Amino acid sequence: MDFPYPSLMFLADVDRVSAKTALGVAYWRPDACVGQLRLQGCEVDLGLPDMTPAAARAAGARSLLIGVANAGGFIPPHWEAVLIEALEAGLDLISGLHTRLASLPRVRETAERLGRRLLEAREPDPRFNVVGEGAKRGGQRLLTVGTDCAVGKMYAALAIAKELKARGVDADFRATGQTGIFIAGSGAPIDAIVSDFVAGAAEALSPAAGDDHWDVVEGQGSLFHPAYAGVTLGLLHGSQPDALVLCHDATRTAIDGLEAFPTPSLVEAAELNLRLARLTNPAVRFAGVCVNTSRLSPEAAAIYLSETADELGVPCCDPVRTGVAVIVDALLAGAVRRGAA
Amino acid sequence: MDFPYPSLMFLADVDRVSAKTALGVAYWRPDACVGQLRLQGCEVDLGLPDMTPAAARAAGARSLLIGVANAGGFIPPHWEAVLIEALEAGLDLISGLHTRLASLPRVRETAERLGRRLLEAREPDPRFNVVGEGAKRGGQRLLTVGTDCAVGKMYAALAIAKELKARGVDADFRATGQTGIFIAGSGAPIDAIVSDFVAGAAEALSPAAGDDHWDVVEGQGSLFHPAYAGVTLGLLHGSQPDALVLCHDATRTAIDGLEAFPTPSLVEAAELNLRLARLTNPAVRFAGVCVNTSRLSPEAAAIYLSETADELGVPCCDPVRTGVAVIVDALLAGAVRRGAA
Repeated sequence: MDFPYPSLMFLADVDRVSAKTALGVAYWRPDACVGQLRLQGCEVDLGLPDMTPAAARAAGARSLLIGVANAGGFIPPHWEAVLIEALEAGLDLISGLHTRLASLPRVRETAERLGRRLLEAREPDPRFNVVGEGAKRGGQRLLTVGTDCAVGKMYAALAIAKELKARGVDADFRATGQTGIFIAGSGAPIDAIVSDFVAGAAEALSPAAGDDHWDVVEGQGSLFHPAYAGVTLGLLHGSQPDALVLCHDATRTAIDGLEAFPTPSLVEAAELNLRLARLTNPAVRFAGVCVNTSRLSPEAAAIYLSETADELGVPCCDPVRTGVAVIVDALLAGAVRRGAA
Repeated sequence: MDFPYPSLMFLADVDRVSAKTALGVAYWRPDACVGQLRLQGCEVDLGLPDMTPAAARAAGARSLLIGVANAGGFIPPHWEAVLIEALEAGLDLISGLHTRLASLPRVRETAERLGRRLLEAREPDPRFNVVGEGAKRGGQRLLTVGTDCAVGKMYAALAIAKELKARGVDADFRATGQTGIFIAGSGAPIDAIVSDFVAGAAEALSPAAGDDHWDVVEGQGSLFHPAYAGVTLGLLHGSQPDALVLCHDATRTAIDGLEAFPTPSLVEAAELNLRLARLTNPAVRFAGVCVNTSRLSPEAAAIYLSETADELGVPCCDPVRTGVAVIVDALLAGAVRRGAA
């Protein structure tokens, strides 16, 4: 997809978890961000200048990007005035929500009248509407999985793909969510795909490749999330991972927003993901743990990472604090060993 | 949905597995079937008179129903002439495939010109586009699960719901696939729902009810199917079953059409379904096994059912050959015991 960057990042009135789209794009694609537009009650600051749509246009913005990932992916009515104002200021609109921009009559009419574009990251490419076949494909694949939503699966995948490339490995980041698609410019919006086709879409997203090629696939949801585990399992089967990296937030004790559902232990999460992944790749292995330790002191974080590595027997890191080199070291060493065996 | 029955059943050129929609409707809703229309190469006979669309119209048919459940749910180009002929003969069209009838320009134009209706069982009602919440609901739920697709999950659910009602229990069959929706007249086409909403749709399909009410939910796919396991898991979590009934075809040794994937043992299938179901209902129990023994002799079938019941420690029956009374006996006895405990 050819998104008309740079954008004015629309944060609306969200909390930090729902702002993960804007936060992710601002971190990984600073070139795509001109400023931010926040409504009253917004709890997030991207550190970008606050701008009206007109000011953003004057500063070079070509679009307004809805930087929100709310449950249900809907557009509440009180955002519409901002969307109209952006269109009138000369900006295209970019959205990754389930609600389609064109389904809002005033937005659609304004865009048509002014010749603006309405771009939808969650509108799946028809090539992803395919039934999975389960056949083993060439090439290596890594999938990030999680104890919950919003624990860093996309960030970990982007960091691992970047580290692999930095070491000269032929690697691709494969986006599966709106934020990843905004960052990479392409991908499969896996949670917006008709459920029959989820595994097939994951297969199409990480096609057969040369033996030394790595696809690093962004995970979605969690096998322990009562709403999204099915999405997670379809992606797990279709992406056919050779390596799993488990992601976790060190201070999360329950599934986000669902206090009745405790987060699983890392051991349980690793075991269940491996067990279910073996259906399409019996050789899958557990390659490491990525932990968001941002709410821990540096000392507490170091202890947490060290103890987790000891307990699980795999490298453990915080992609932001420590980088992912220890995981990539082990991954490549493992691949070499396997090739030589 | 108010389907314009009776219908001419269109079988196209399918094999027995793909004809399961027509076979299911003809068995459970004989009142909905006037005749059958088969193309060259069709391997199935419903035992209904072969008719042209015009003859079916003269015999009282109001619609042509596409009785096919092919992988991918597509409408191949060579069916189009029959669809057009049916519209011209005065019949509405009923489909449960992923391909929408209105997406075929000649079909749409002909229907519009003649004022015929194009009815789609796989077009989900917007009330199913909701995120699952995982909260425990009142009422009892039974879900049929399977070792594979097309092993009798819908048949078992219909038979159990019928047996419960025959005993005076307040029970509803909840359809989750095109065939079940054609039979029941309503339901959630779970495999056509956007993946994010599968668990939520299953919650909406089997809402809170009185303590003595049973929803008997039709299962989809299998946790052991590399293409559809995600659909199965979302339905398992959202329907929050109190009781699971495992369905199997006694002579199936590999996932249908995917020889590289052996069917699981019944013990393994029961264990994994129970384990994953506990996320949303820790009290879930294993209530019985339904086996399609149609390819076994009566003697071999009796031995198979008896040995399976002994091995798994639950009632085991063939819904067609023996009925499901043994499962319903145990189910109601268990419910009484639980209530009295």
